[in-house]
Amino acid sequence: MTDTFSFDLLKTDGVARRGVVKTPRGNIQTPAFMPVGTQGTVKALYMDQVKETGADIILGNTYHLMLRPGAERVAKLGGLHDLIKWDGPILTDSGGFQVMSLAKLRKLTEHGVTFQSHIDGSKHELTPERSMEIQRLLGSTIQMQLDECVGFPHTRDDAKRAMELSLRWAQRSRTAFGDQPGHGCFGIVQGGIQEDLREQSAKGLIEIGFEGYAIGGLAVGEGQELMLQTIEVTAPHLPTDKPRYLMGVGTPEDLLLSVERGIDMFDCVMPTRSGRHGQAFTRFGKLNIRNAKHAEDLRPLDETSNHPALNKYSRAYIHHLVRANEILGMMLLSWANIAYYQELMAGMRSAIEAGNFQNFKQQTISDWQKGKTQ
Amino acid sequence: MTDTFSFDLLKTDGVARRGVVKTPRGNIQTPAFMPVGTQGTVKALYMDQVKETGADIILGNTYHLMLRPGAERVAKLGGLHDLIKWDGPILTDSGGFQVMSLAKLRKLTEHGVTFQSHIDGSKHELTPERSMEIQRLLGSTIQMQLDECVGFPHTRDDAKRAMELSLRWAQRSRTAFGDQPGHGCFGIVQGGIQEDLREQSAKGLIEIGFEGYAIGGLAVGEGQELMLQTIEVTAPHLPTDKPRYLMGVGTPEDLLLSVERGIDMFDCVMPTRSGRHGQAFTRFGKLNIRNAKHAEDLRPLDETSNHPALNKYSRAYIHHLVRANEILGMMLLSWANIAYYQELMAGMRSAIEAGNFQNFKQQTISDWQKGKTQ
Repeated sequence: MTDTFSFDLLKTDGVARRGVVKTPRGNIQTPAFMPVGTQGTVKALYMDQVKETGADIILGNTYHLMLRPGAERVAKLGGLHDLIKWDGPILTDSGGFQVMSLAKLRKLTEHGVTFQSHIDGSKHELTPERSMEIQRLLGSTIQMQLDECVGFPHTRDDAKRAMELSLRWAQRSRTAFGDQPGHGCFGIVQGGIQEDLREQSAKGLIEIGFEGYAIGGLAVGEGQELMLQTIEVTAPHLPTDKPRYLMGVGTPEDLLLSVERGIDMFDCVMPTRSGRHGQAFTRFGKLNIRNAKHAEDLRPLDETSNHPALNKYSRAYIHHLVRANEILGMMLLSWANIAYYQELMAGMRSAIEAGNFQNFKQQTISDWQKGKTQ
Repeated sequence: MTDTFSFDLLKTDGVARRGVVKTPRGNIQTPAFMPVGTQGTVKALYMDQVKETGADIILGNTYHLMLRPGAERVAKLGGLHDLIKWDGPILTDSGGFQVMSLAKLRKLTEHGVTFQSHIDGSKHELTPERSMEIQRLLGSTIQMQLDECVGFPHTRDDAKRAMELSLRWAQRSRTAFGDQPGHGCFGIVQGGIQEDLREQSAKGLIEIGFEGYAIGGLAVGEGQELMLQTIEVTAPHLPTDKPRYLMGVGTPEDLLLSVERGIDMFDCVMPTRSGRHGQAFTRFGKLNIRNAKHAEDLRPLDETSNHPALNKYSRAYIHHLVRANEILGMMLLSWANIAYYQELMAGMRSAIEAGNFQNFKQQTISDWQKGKTQ
């Protein structure tokens, strides 16, 4: 175990990277997928299951946790790790993104953003300083700067204004983060789909200096092609010796193609949210398990997997559970999807180590295609 | 392992009985609580958890399973055990009770009952013969006769008519059950709260002969006192060498007081249903975990328990999960309640073995009281 927060780049294969983020809470093998534990729980999973699928780190949402149970209360209860019984690293977002998507009566100024809770209408303020304070109270291992994320489509002016504000907030966040040995603070590259703005943002952040760099403002409606293009023009401006985190992404294919473009870390609600809605991500592509064709299918989700979430229960049983609105249906599919995402990440890590990422990519895509004929 | 279905009465303490039902699927230590797996799942629990709490047997509902996925489909898929991944004994009810409480346009005749599905309005018929056929298709270890259960209050005439019909259906059910080595068929004593009708029902059933005898028609609104009185006047008429099953009961106190009156088996949705609604049953009484007083309580549900469902998570965390409508809140409380119910049953079994059931009963009631002052 280490006392400090660090990143080792172990191997590259083309632009794809194999690394390890070291923290006192444990190591994060990259490329890594971080299951989202929005409100202090990865929905419908036990933390033991999350760990056992191979996840090294989970994500918590500052917006949700500041409203309920509240940052000061979580601190009083011993911090988020102890409260939710997850002893590995936790990354928290800044809360900014969800303020803009969930809260009511938002008002954004240079100082920060004021809003009303979507739960009870109570008034709150989130500034770079308060966001960092909340994340510290939660005990977060990786804390994200407050930023402003523009949607899609956006004007260049909007993207520029938000990027510049995000840079000023990056400096204030970094200052507020202060000295927290063993913890990391990540800056967030903004700039919409404008290449020069992304470069300017990256350079500004590097000048401030962070333990890692995120690419924000993607997966907001621009589509996969523009997303990948933006990664391609942004990644080269990021330091090779720090982890790179693509926020809020994505589908298994998004992960594969983004790792190919040099991304190290991901988070997304997709595996759990889809799992609660009857969708399974598997080695053989996506299944809508509600579909009548699964009603008498005795095969498990993936007979080639060694994981109980994927190989133990028949599609027929999960189909029945989902049709009958049983909680166990959501539990099994959420678990299976997280297990598959982690299998995919493990596969990518091995492939980069072995120097055959391109083969792995082709095989993986070909397996996804096969499923369509089943 | 045994090839046959049998019951051994191991010990009595007063009227309380300690026994074991032996089946090819495994032994059922009695007094036993059977978690209810309505639609092929004990709601919000993994079967591994159900097993590990100490449950030897679960219950499945014929009404639900005949409608979805359907008895013939379950048989085609290898039977209920294989479908749901529970290898221990399963008891199925006859479906009659839920036809009367859930289905639409019910019509009861001497032949059986016709009804429309509450799911899709499709028309079905349940006769003693069809109920037994469905239970056989499901692969049920203990199959219940079709009966008619009168509600409360009821007239003596109603109770008499339903009891007599149930006796005729008992004979038809027994005949339809046929020869199924290793499986048991249970008759159901009816007769409302009328002592002589209960006696008449019990005698009629014994004349037909069953592997076990259930007391039906209780926990339908008559209250605990009348329920216990009815058990007291019924149990003496049941054979001592067969298991006695009190259907659909109950609270922890109901279980304790019914075991004291000679009952061996129970089922109830209470632990899981209450768990989904924020209620915890513990050694120290019932907790409404939504209550604000739990918001910063770092104690687990029961610090004296060795079970992770009861000792691992703080009340503060479960309170948060329940308030935030998180599935994990329902998972944890359902699991904890089943664990507590099984701990209670194990305690009663040990107490009867040791010949100190009365002490155990007093201590248990006193512990429940203590919780109220916490």
